[in-house]
Amino acid sequence: MTNFRIDNLQYANWSEKIFRQMREGGLDAVHVTISYHENFRETVLNFEQWNRWFEQYPDLIMKGQWASDIDKARETGRTAIFFGFQNPSPIEDDIGLVEIVHTLGARFMQLTYNNQSLLATGCYESEDPGITRMGKQVIKEMNRVGLVVDMSHSADRSTIEAAEISERPIAITHANLHSWAPALRNKKDDVVRAVTERGGMLGFSLYPHHLKGKSECKLESFCQMIAQAADLYGAEHLGIGSDLCQDQPDSVVEWMRVGRWSKEIDYGEGSAAAPGFPPMPSWYEDNRHFGNLEDGLKAIGMNPEEVTGIMGGNWYRFYAKNFTPQG
Amino acid sequence: MTNFRIDNLQYANWSEKIFRQMREGGLDAVHVTISYHENFRETVLNFEQWNRWFEQYPDLIMKGQWASDIDKARETGRTAIFFGFQNPSPIEDDIGLVEIVHTLGARFMQLTYNNQSLLATGCYESEDPGITRMGKQVIKEMNRVGLVVDMSHSADRSTIEAAEISERPIAITHANLHSWAPALRNKKDDVVRAVTERGGMLGFSLYPHHLKGKSECKLESFCQMIAQAADLYGAEHLGIGSDLCQDQPDSVVEWMRVGRWSKEIDYGEGSAAAPGFPPMPSWYEDNRHFGNLEDGLKAIGMNPEEVTGIMGGNWYRFYAKNFTPQG
Repeated sequence: MTNFRIDNLQYANWSEKIFRQMREGGLDAVHVTISYHENFRETVLNFEQWNRWFEQYPDLIMKGQWASDIDKARETGRTAIFFGFQNPSPIEDDIGLVEIVHTLGARFMQLTYNNQSLLATGCYESEDPGITRMGKQVIKEMNRVGLVVDMSHSADRSTIEAAEISERPIAITHANLHSWAPALRNKKDDVVRAVTERGGMLGFSLYPHHLKGKSECKLESFCQMIAQAADLYGAEHLGIGSDLCQDQPDSVVEWMRVGRWSKEIDYGEGSAAAPGFPPMPSWYEDNRHFGNLEDGLKAIGMNPEEVTGIMGGNWYRFYAKNFTPQG
Repeated sequence: MTNFRIDNLQYANWSEKIFRQMREGGLDAVHVTISYHENFRETVLNFEQWNRWFEQYPDLIMKGQWASDIDKARETGRTAIFFGFQNPSPIEDDIGLVEIVHTLGARFMQLTYNNQSLLATGCYESEDPGITRMGKQVIKEMNRVGLVVDMSHSADRSTIEAAEISERPIAITHANLHSWAPALRNKKDDVVRAVTERGGMLGFSLYPHHLKGKSECKLESFCQMIAQAADLYGAEHLGIGSDLCQDQPDSVVEWMRVGRWSKEIDYGEGSAAAPGFPPMPSWYEDNRHFGNLEDGLKAIGMNPEEVTGIMGGNWYRFYAKNFTPQG
């Protein structure tokens, strides 16, 4: 198996510096978030911004649409950038936009971001009535065109139902095991099982609020959680979705948390005392540290083939099967 | 040379009936207008509508993006549908939308529709100051991504300047020779020359207001005009852009003519007494008559190879060179 390195979720304050760090870290592909609460037109502005970066940094990055673009990136020493949304706001109330955003390059879309959406329930709601009428139609359309259902920020019942309703495997792109770190965003056994036993993927997050001991979490502990997940769900369903939010100002955390849906501040996983991004663990400060995960997994004795899959091979195989139109 | 049949401009009230008539007429490709005055979001709704038609009629039509899609359509007995705009309204005031609409499938964009636009001057304005500052930037961007400049409804100076400024050949997708029928929309010698001598194309229109004798025009006269254009500009620069507006209600003529830019009625090429679409000539009522043009050109003695080019081969070659990104 080729030693791909794929990080399946980042939302950094992109710059030439970060693109160079991706290259230093040997990243063949990165899935980047280009929408939290943006409506369709605002999301198109974000596609436009990336088009400009592809023009400006043709030696560092390229647009990723298919798994084969990862091979192309690797052959030319670049990082393939794949697009995703952490909310269905880009499709507004219009199912026809599912195919439009896929044509523009979107490959993952969360059905919810913390709150109730038109499609499903977010993990911060007190009630979870499951997938909505529109949600069922949109999942079918996402299956048809090759836009992957991502339930990272969704509530449990909605996630399990999405896994069951979807005819193609779904993903939790960035979260950890709730049994290891009982954060609201980490996933319980029945949720992870529902996703992985249908061919879905779980990407492990380095966001400190999702880590045992937060910023003080040890690499060994993180890797042991991964090894445990491999035992429980099969290593082939696991990958990395670092949730790297490098160089973002606190105003962006606020946009992520409250968008335009509230006039009051909601601190999400933070607090009034610590409203901003927490510091990353010392062994994962930016893309240059991606290789530390490989070393960590090997150090705890995971077999090299499983490590290769987790570092990128599993996402590669998932991309190859799930980004193309059905049939 | 393969005997392609390509109609490089239609704006019909699309239906299964018309798609079947395209097949009966042996059309391998049709360039369809999907925007007159629609802004970006409204144009996206039109892309969405076509996506639904591709889903509903997969045996009759398919989305066309590249010249190779015409071969694919031909092999599978379908018509490849290519998209274009008769106005730059879909890109609003945002140059970043040029690449976005190309990604969605747009392949031709008029810089103006009769009136002054942000980019150039339309043929109904009394003054033509030429290509604007934004126009120069947008032409460069259209060249870069592979979106063809179409000047069918533009004023003379703007058209000649566009041909000169553009680094790739441009097109007049639907118009006839002004010397043959002196309609405002038909093109004078210096305009046609500026376009064709730089590798550009002229598509001949069957819209009665552009014909000598209007609805009473004879096929022989139409074909003689084409033969004359072949002598003057070279047959390899000529094709068909029928401007077929089949089954459209008069309300659509009004939308084409006044959009949202005027509260008063503007009759364009019509008049208060005859505000609607004029009847098509008896030898060109719909797509099933496309072959009549071939017969007509052969009947006046044009050489078969030139006829093959005009019926579609020339547009095929033009598509192959001008729809892909530069460099």
